[in-house]
Amino acid sequence: MQRTGQIAEVRQIIQQARSLGQKIALVPTMGYLHEGHLALVAAAQRAEAFIVMSIFVNPLQFGPNEDFERYPRDLERDAHLAAGAGVDLLFHPDVKEMYPEVVEATVRVETMENLLCGASRPGHFRGVATVVSKLLHIVQPDQAFFGLKDYQQYLIIKKMARDLNFPVEIIGVPIVRESDGLAKSSRNVYLSPQERAEAVVLYQSLSLAAAAIREGERDPRKIEALIRQKISETSGRIDYVEVRNAADLAAVERIEQTVVIAVAVYFKTTRLIDNLVVQA
Amino acid sequence: MQRTGQIAEVRQIIQQARSLGQKIALVPTMGYLHEGHLALVAAAQRAEAFIVMSIFVNPLQFGPNEDFERYPRDLERDAHLAAGAGVDLLFHPDVKEMYPEVVEATVRVETMENLLCGASRPGHFRGVATVVSKLLHIVQPDQAFFGLKDYQQYLIIKKMARDLNFPVEIIGVPIVRESDGLAKSSRNVYLSPQERAEAVVLYQSLSLAAAAIREGERDPRKIEALIRQKISETSGRIDYVEVRNAADLAAVERIEQTVVIAVAVYFKTTRLIDNLVVQA
Repeated sequence: MQRTGQIAEVRQIIQQARSLGQKIALVPTMGYLHEGHLALVAAAQRAEAFIVMSIFVNPLQFGPNEDFERYPRDLERDAHLAAGAGVDLLFHPDVKEMYPEVVEATVRVETMENLLCGASRPGHFRGVATVVSKLLHIVQPDQAFFGLKDYQQYLIIKKMARDLNFPVEIIGVPIVRESDGLAKSSRNVYLSPQERAEAVVLYQSLSLAAAAIREGERDPRKIEALIRQKISETSGRIDYVEVRNAADLAAVERIEQTVVIAVAVYFKTTRLIDNLVVQA
Repeated sequence: MQRTGQIAEVRQIIQQARSLGQKIALVPTMGYLHEGHLALVAAAQRAEAFIVMSIFVNPLQFGPNEDFERYPRDLERDAHLAAGAGVDLLFHPDVKEMYPEVVEATVRVETMENLLCGASRPGHFRGVATVVSKLLHIVQPDQAFFGLKDYQQYLIIKKMARDLNFPVEIIGVPIVRESDGLAKSSRNVYLSPQERAEAVVLYQSLSLAAAAIREGERDPRKIEALIRQKISETSGRIDYVEVRNAADLAAVERIEQTVVIAVAVYFKTTRLIDNLVVQA
C-alpha cells in the first residue's frame, strides 16, 4: 500500500494506475477505522478497482461546539487496517493541504442539507459536500463508496453528483452492526459501559418500528412515538426521530412508499445516529 | 466540427480524443458569438488541444427580471463561426439536458459573489459557478478559457477551481474591443444607434482613470468620481464604478498595488460592463 499526504502525489499515482487501464475507487473516511469502513473497501474490491482511501477529519463539517478536536485519530492503526483490507493508496492530508487558503468556494445541496442531522448541525452538510467535491476532484474516481449509516449524507452526495454531473458513480454500502445491533461508529468509543449498553436502543427501537410498518401501521407519527417511547426508557436524549421518504427525505403524511426511519440520540455529549430503510 | 446537445455523447467523443493522447480545452459561452469568443478559441488553439465550445444560455444565472428570454440566440450562425475558428466539438444542450431535475446542488464562492455585478444581480454568480462546475465535470478539460471582460466571473471561477481542487487550469483571455474601444458583447445588439455611440464612454472613462493612476493619483474615490463624471455626460445610468484589488476584489483604501477598475452602466434596460487592470 502506498501512502501520502500530498495532493500532487495522489494525482501522480492515480494517473499511473489509470494509464495501466485500472478503474479508480474512492473510499472517503475520517479514519479511526472500524468494520463499517472495511465493508466499503470490500465493496470497492468487488469492483476490481485501484482503491484509494482518504483519511481526513474535515474541520469544515464540524460546528464550533462539536467534537472536531477530540474526534478519535490513530493513523498508524488505520494504515495497518487499510493495508490489510486491500487499500492501494492511503491519502491522509493535513488541514493545511486541504485548505491552504481561506475557503470561499463551497457546495450546497438545498432542502436536504437543513433537515435531520442538518437541522442540529448547521453547515455540516455544506462541509461534507465541499470536502467530498474536493476529494472527487483530487482522486477522479469511477466509483465512490459511502456507508448507509450516514443515510442523509449518502443521498446528498448522490444528488450533488447528479445535479453537478460529477463523472462518478456513488455507491451506498449497508450498515455494519455490532452483535447486539449497535451500528459501528468511530464515536462509539466515547460511550461509558452503561451508555454502550443503553445505546442498543437505537437499533432495537428502529427494528420495532420497522416491524410495525410491515404489520400495517401507516401513520408516521405513531411510528415516531413508538421509537420515542423506547428511547425515553434510557438516559438517551433524542435529537430527532423521523420517518421520511427514502428517495429524497421528503416529509411523509402516510407510509405508502419506501421510507427511511432515522434517529439521532445523545448519550451525554456523544451523538449517535442510525436508520432503517423499510418498504411499506 | 462535431455537434451534439447530449451530455452522454460529449463524454464519448472526449474519451475518444483523450485516448488519442489529446489535451482537452473548454470554451464555455452563451453563444451569439463575437470576436471576444473567437479570441478564446484562438487561445485554446495555441494550447494545441481538442477544443470543446459549449453554447448554453444558462437560466440559473439570470434574475427573474433579467434578459434570459430575449438574450440573443443564433445557433446556426454560431456553429458556422465556431467551425471556422477551429472548434472540434460544439456542445449545445437545451435546458432540460442541463437541468433535468429540480436543482438542489449549487456552488457558491462567498465574498466575491456579492460584490459588483453580484450586488445588482443576486444569485448570478451562484448560477455561473454552478453551470461552469457542471461543464467542467461533463467535459473534464485540461484548460478552460474565460474572457476578462467578465473579470469578476474569471476571478470567481479561478477561486472555485482552486478551492475545490478542480483538475483544470483556468485561463483569462484579454478583452476584445470595437475600433472605438467598446468591449465586444452579445448584448451590444440591444443598443440603439445613439446608445451605441454613447456606450464608448465606458472605455473612455476607464482609460482616463487608468491614465490618472499612472500619473500618480492614489485615491480610489477620486478615480471613481472621475469616471462617474464622464458617464453622467451621457444617457447612461451607473450601476457601479469601483476600484478594487485585482487579485481578489478586496476594497482598496489607497491604490498601491494592481487594481481593477470596473464599471457597469445601463443604457435603458441594456446593462454593459467593462474593466481595466492597472498597475499602480
